[in-house]
Amino acid sequence: MERDQAEELRSLQDTLYFIGGKWRIPIINSICNGNKRFKEIERSIPGITTRMLSKELKDMEVNKLVKRTVYPDIPVLIEYEPTEHCRSFGNVIAEMINWGRSHRDIVMERKK
Amino acid sequence: MERDQAEELRSLQDTLYFIGGKWRIPIINSICNGNKRFKEIERSIPGITTRMLSKELKDMEVNKLVKRTVYPDIPVLIEYEPTEHCRSFGNVIAEMINWGRSHRDIVMERKK
Repeated sequence: MERDQAEELRSLQDTLYFIGGKWRIPIINSICNGNKRFKEIERSIPGITTRMLSKELKDMEVNKLVKRTVYPDIPVLIEYEPTEHCRSFGNVIAEMINWGRSHRDIVMERKK
Repeated sequence: MERDQAEELRSLQDTLYFIGGKWRIPIINSICNGNKRFKEIERSIPGITTRMLSKELKDMEVNKLVKRTVYPDIPVLIEYEPTEHCRSFGNVIAEMINWGRSHRDIVMERKK
């Protein structure tokens, strides 16, 4: 089958649009790694502000990437879980981690 | 071996920093697909401006992602080629294309 470069580019740009910004992917990564509570997620991502995390989680809930469950205990317990669609992004993240590693090695090598 | 989540996050953030902006990856994709001349690359990426492409290519040359060769013909011929390091980003791009496709299917499904 011949490759449809225009279609490939559209798919690629959809993904880049989805990634949008520096926090979306670290948050997906954190939730897929099993962090469920707001504070857990926040602590796992150095540099993120409470405000940014809150905004991103709301957006991700609307877009069906994250499921938010409220347990009516006292105090109220809120948990975030990744949807299947969110988990499917894991392969992209795994490749990004691999590449980031080799990129670091190459940059270090150059500085020697 | 236990997973080092902090290290994984750093590698991930290095990659995200590298991606920076909406044009870097489509340009890598275009050059890795065999487009060599400025005009070819420009035509293969709908929406990119001459100014943006020029700026990105200069930046990628400095960072050893792209090799720029000038052939002293009349008129001068300039070709851009991906370095090995640039090509190694191909796996990330392939996963992004795959995910972008399934994401589109899911978004379409939801709108029905």
